[in-house]
Amino acid sequence: GGLGWSMRPETQLCDNGKLSPEESDAIQKRENGVTESSPMRLRMEAMIRQKQKEIVEALEKIDGEKFIVDAWARESGGGGVSCVLQDGNVFEKAGVNISIVYGTLPPAAVQSMRAHHKSFDPNDDKVNFFAAGLSMVLHPKNPMAPTVHLNYRYFETMNEDGSTKSWWFGGGTDLTPSYLFDEDAIHFHRTLKEACDRHDPEYYPRFKKWCDDYFYVKHRHESRGIGGIFFDDLEDKDPEQLLSFVTDCLGSFIPGYLPILEKRKDLPFTQDEKNWQQLRRGRYVEFNLVHDRGTKFGLNTPHARIESILMSLPLTARWQYMHEPEKGTREHRMVDVLKNPREWVQTSA
Amino acid sequence: GGLGWSMRPETQLCDNGKLSPEESDAIQKRENGVTESSPMRLRMEAMIRQKQKEIVEALEKIDGEKFIVDAWARESGGGGVSCVLQDGNVFEKAGVNISIVYGTLPPAAVQSMRAHHKSFDPNDDKVNFFAAGLSMVLHPKNPMAPTVHLNYRYFETMNEDGSTKSWWFGGGTDLTPSYLFDEDAIHFHRTLKEACDRHDPEYYPRFKKWCDDYFYVKHRHESRGIGGIFFDDLEDKDPEQLLSFVTDCLGSFIPGYLPILEKRKDLPFTQDEKNWQQLRRGRYVEFNLVHDRGTKFGLNTPHARIESILMSLPLTARWQYMHEPEKGTREHRMVDVLKNPREWVQTSA
Repeated sequence: GGLGWSMRPETQLCDNGKLSPEESDAIQKRENGVTESSPMRLRMEAMIRQKQKEIVEALEKIDGEKFIVDAWARESGGGGVSCVLQDGNVFEKAGVNISIVYGTLPPAAVQSMRAHHKSFDPNDDKVNFFAAGLSMVLHPKNPMAPTVHLNYRYFETMNEDGSTKSWWFGGGTDLTPSYLFDEDAIHFHRTLKEACDRHDPEYYPRFKKWCDDYFYVKHRHESRGIGGIFFDDLEDKDPEQLLSFVTDCLGSFIPGYLPILEKRKDLPFTQDEKNWQQLRRGRYVEFNLVHDRGTKFGLNTPHARIESILMSLPLTARWQYMHEPEKGTREHRMVDVLKNPREWVQTSA
Repeated sequence: GGLGWSMRPETQLCDNGKLSPEESDAIQKRENGVTESSPMRLRMEAMIRQKQKEIVEALEKIDGEKFIVDAWARESGGGGVSCVLQDGNVFEKAGVNISIVYGTLPPAAVQSMRAHHKSFDPNDDKVNFFAAGLSMVLHPKNPMAPTVHLNYRYFETMNEDGSTKSWWFGGGTDLTPSYLFDEDAIHFHRTLKEACDRHDPEYYPRFKKWCDDYFYVKHRHESRGIGGIFFDDLEDKDPEQLLSFVTDCLGSFIPGYLPILEKRKDLPFTQDEKNWQQLRRGRYVEFNLVHDRGTKFGLNTPHARIESILMSLPLTARWQYMHEPEKGTREHRMVDVLKNPREWVQTSA
């Protein structure tokens, strides 16, 4: 509690005397608060601020240590709040980050977005946009406790008057164990499936596969983890319904992950098992730095906050030449599942 | 000694009954050995095999442990020898790798190479090529002893009859300390400058700058290390002279680096200093996975030997959120030099 959740207390006028979308949103929030009739971008922002708070509180309770909280502003519009807990009792590193960005899209970005979104106007050369997202990565200390990642985001472009033009949601939640407990994998996927099923029976099978595809580490011929759900450019329903869907996905994180962490965080382990975890952390780094689109995009964004982007990296990692687990070991089975993704829950679709 | 330096003992005919360039080279080597009148590709191969042996022997002597030696063949032509020493007495990880590749260039590669090399024939759609290189990365255990990297390579395309069409050399040697000893930086650069000066007084200043530019980690606004030399597409002299230049560069490695290692490998250090080294190793991983062209190319090459490509990564690395060295400390001075590359030796040019 008592965290610096707001970032820009003062309103400033643009050079031309007009309010920027960010500034007029700030006034609107101050005067009216955020209600069900507010624009989607303000509701998404309010939702992820609330979820960040809930998640941080739940994680502090299980770890016993407090998060470091950094509120930051982006030079060219917007900002965020990064919460990081490092070398705690349960977590080696835990990061829960929100960012709220206002800006204008360069023509190249407009071109590439038009490929996915027909509603983009090809004649616009200066497009105002808004992006808000919550992303989280938790790396527990105990090698029996899995790493977990989630990211939910909303993107929109705006007309001159601040009304919404194009919009979509994206996101996902996925699990990366070093040691596989089938019951954990089943519980994790079942919780996600239940959240999906409340909104669309097609979502879980579609987004489970999308997740397996996205987190495939091509150069290693294996998946980063045992998956979960992943989706992007989602605009197939009313925005109201999709906000409710991503809210539900975020809400499923605590019941989906914390029971697993509780069960595994104090299990005994050997130095060899710790070593294996560190090698798997190395693979995590490889995916994030070589393949992850979000990380790449962040590293190439001017004025991006590098420490918030790379907060997803583990505290420590290891690369050992030609390490191959022996057949019949738990480590070998883990790799086998990463090379051949499983269905963890029955789908009727 | 006694290592498996040769890889493909038996000659095989192509499907069409003609000898491939690789096979006819193998026969030539077997019948005549490699002499000064052999094609450049065979002389480069012989040279890097010899240098790999010399370097591995020198490093084994200083470490006390032996390298693991893996000779490997590439499915689609050629192969290599990877020598790795892991968790030794002096080295956390040391990799000395050669690869000799025969293949045909896809049209896209031909197009991109023509931009740099006018001698490329735009009408060729299937170009035979040869590439040979030695690359090495040493990560010592002691945080006072710097990481060192080198890579020297030769590339050519061939006519039907096996004669050389286009060709060039590339390479470089650079140093990455966690703690800066000015005398080490000066000795390292001076040795490289002397090797360069024996061939062209313009080389050192040009290649020193190229090195600073190449190893710049854009997203961190700092260099990977304190530089050295770097060059690519070098074809500005007689191939004979350039072979002699890269041979000299490789020859300068032992006198340039080993005296530094001898001085630093047994210095006392604290846990905090080890920690700082591990953070710098994290930055090394970031450069190699995000920016290094060679690594990227390797990870995207079908049938590439991933373990040989990623042998450049340290055994262990660390990422700590918002770690910033205090002003006035040695760590702070190190970062300052990485943000503002220095001239370590006087150049008359």
